[in-house]
Amino acid sequence: LSAQLPERPFLYPILDVALLGGRPVAEAVAAVARGGARLVQLRAKKVTGRVLVGLAEEAQQAARAADVLLIVNDRPDVARIVGADGVHVGQDDLPPSDVRRVLGAGAVVGFSTHSLAQLEWPLENDQPVDYLAVGPVFPTRTKQDADPVVGLDLVRRARQRVALPLVAIGGITAENARDVIDAGADGVAVISALLATADLEAATRRLIAAIAAAR
Amino acid sequence: LSAQLPERPFLYPILDVALLGGRPVAEAVAAVARGGARLVQLRAKKVTGRVLVGLAEEAQQAARAADVLLIVNDRPDVARIVGADGVHVGQDDLPPSDVRRVLGAGAVVGFSTHSLAQLEWPLENDQPVDYLAVGPVFPTRTKQDADPVVGLDLVRRARQRVALPLVAIGGITAENARDVIDAGADGVAVISALLATADLEAATRRLIAAIAAAR
Repeated sequence: LSAQLPERPFLYPILDVALLGGRPVAEAVAAVARGGARLVQLRAKKVTGRVLVGLAEEAQQAARAADVLLIVNDRPDVARIVGADGVHVGQDDLPPSDVRRVLGAGAVVGFSTHSLAQLEWPLENDQPVDYLAVGPVFPTRTKQDADPVVGLDLVRRARQRVALPLVAIGGITAENARDVIDAGADGVAVISALLATADLEAATRRLIAAIAAAR
Repeated sequence: LSAQLPERPFLYPILDVALLGGRPVAEAVAAVARGGARLVQLRAKKVTGRVLVGLAEEAQQAARAADVLLIVNDRPDVARIVGADGVHVGQDDLPPSDVRRVLGAGAVVGFSTHSLAQLEWPLENDQPVDYLAVGPVFPTRTKQDADPVVGLDLVRRARQRVALPLVAIGGITAENARDVIDAGADGVAVISALLATADLEAATRRLIAAIAAAR
């Protein structure tokens, strides 16, 4: 059972439960799916393991019902428990090779990078990743300890260096999403541009229309 | 490959990396093993996943070399990655049944409880645990948000109710360890009584001698 990323260009909605404003995670998954998303990441940084696995189970049921991929942030154990399609890890999380030891070969493993050196590290160190996230492309207020903005420039340079799917992240909106795809990203991750809106389905549709207009 | 708890009565040293005071975790594992411990738990609550898996790898190498069981606190993914023997979870962590879905049938799974109701919950809810921790038996300063002290009374009542191995925890020292075993505990967990000492090997030996004197 091997999960596959959506075709380029794709929207990569990150459902950060701290920003859902009380909307149930299952409803949020269903809404972005109705809006056209084929993949969604669940992120819940400040909850207990017990709460996280409950949220992941709800997200997974909704994702399966809507036929969208579910990527769990940070925790391969939780992804395995609920049967999610993959895990996304950052520089401080478990290394991708370890994530795969928990999830197996068929899972999608994504990895956050913030520089060319970080982009090249998994490729040169036997770290089996399915996509690389690059950012923050633009200033963002979602992460309080955000890394320095890397701009479209790093997306372009990353595109020249790696064949792996690239997901750009950080401050991406319906207004600039097209530029990000044009710079070489395969997918664009959105948090605030999506979750700060009242209608997740409409916002998803608007974002997907924006990236579809890329060259 | 099925891991087994040591025979009763046993010492259950918890190596909380925040309390190691700069002692490398591998040396700490080796020291308690030399002192006679047959099992050790690694606990590291405030470190990143990347750091945790590194600490767990060091602990596992030392544990394997000394032929002691390694139990990782909280994270079945990390235990699986390093090949540890088991995982200990608390009330807010992943439920034991989920832990076992990550680790398999042969792993040791322990579960913290602080009341009779919590002791009975796994038994009545298909939660496959290998031992139950009960506490805090005495006042403790290790946990800032410690649960109310349950006293030897809960150990005695727990002993009457469950056949599973019981590990008492909380404020246990060489002075009171024997009372805890006499109350029905199979093992005694120690943190401060061990880690506040300069000589981990000697402290382990002293604690083991204390519980060996039980009736």
